[in-house]
Amino acid sequence: MVDTEPRPSSDGPSGAAAAVASSCSIAATLDVVGDRWTVLILRDVFRGVRRFAQLQADLGIARNLLADRLSRLVDHGVLERVPYQTRPLRCEYRLTAKGADLSTALIALMGWGDRWYAHDGVPTILVHETCGTPLEQVVRCPHCDETVNPGRIRSRPGPGRSPA
Amino acid sequence: MVDTEPRPSSDGPSGAAAAVASSCSIAATLDVVGDRWTVLILRDVFRGVRRFAQLQADLGIARNLLADRLSRLVDHGVLERVPYQTRPLRCEYRLTAKGADLSTALIALMGWGDRWYAHDGVPTILVHETCGTPLEQVVRCPHCDETVNPGRIRSRPGPGRSPA
Repeated sequence: MVDTEPRPSSDGPSGAAAAVASSCSIAATLDVVGDRWTVLILRDVFRGVRRFAQLQADLGIARNLLADRLSRLVDHGVLERVPYQTRPLRCEYRLTAKGADLSTALIALMGWGDRWYAHDGVPTILVHETCGTPLEQVVRCPHCDETVNPGRIRSRPGPGRSPA
Repeated sequence: MVDTEPRPSSDGPSGAAAAVASSCSIAATLDVVGDRWTVLILRDVFRGVRRFAQLQADLGIARNLLADRLSRLVDHGVLERVPYQTRPLRCEYRLTAKGADLSTALIALMGWGDRWYAHDGVPTILVHETCGTPLEQVVRCPHCDETVNPGRIRSRPGPGRSPA
């Protein structure tokens, strides 16, 4: 992944850094899920661990921290509270469409850990439901209909780029 | 992405949670890059911002925090210090192969921010060097030779799964 855009200059106006940061989708994502506990909570919800007590037991996280992270995820529309019992009312946490769409990022984080830290073999294998074959995450060019090596990826400014 | 493995029980032995956590490649990745500044530093290095003063100016990060994060990334083998001037000696930070392999994760984090927060259009478009077509990040089944929808992804324990 090589960027062919002009580089921010080290002695440029301080506003330039802010403009780049504010128009960066990586920073936007980190504003929502840029916290270690948050990512581990989402991993658990993807795995089907959806209730407060289960999450607390699985993660070994303090109640107040867990409550804070879950509230933030609900506020950001990543999780929603869904009642599973009415007397007394008890809710579990489910992924919204926006939350489910984080699977790509979780798979990517898992893939890197697998490639560089799973010295005794990978802990979890993602497979195709239909045939059971281990899956691969790739970047594709829909025009050339081929997998694109990271060295062949370039970037250009999009319509949402703030003027520096 | 649906997990078909047995769920951790909320009242199981406390060792089970630790075992799952220790055998989780997402947690392994977060141990290295599970910090907001660290991800933003890596984003900048991918963009070609490689020198301490440039990184500091671009990110608006305190010197001690930047030095700490860079040291950690060097210690983890994600970045390496490469001299660009000898008198006096000055070094810049370059991605190692392990660091460059984080492009998949950064692209995934960017993609989610693009899809859910780029209301005025995406700030950056990743394109194929060869033809300039915007790229897509997908999960593929090499056996079926097709793109796999997240709903068709299953997981199973791999050889590195610690016994719970």
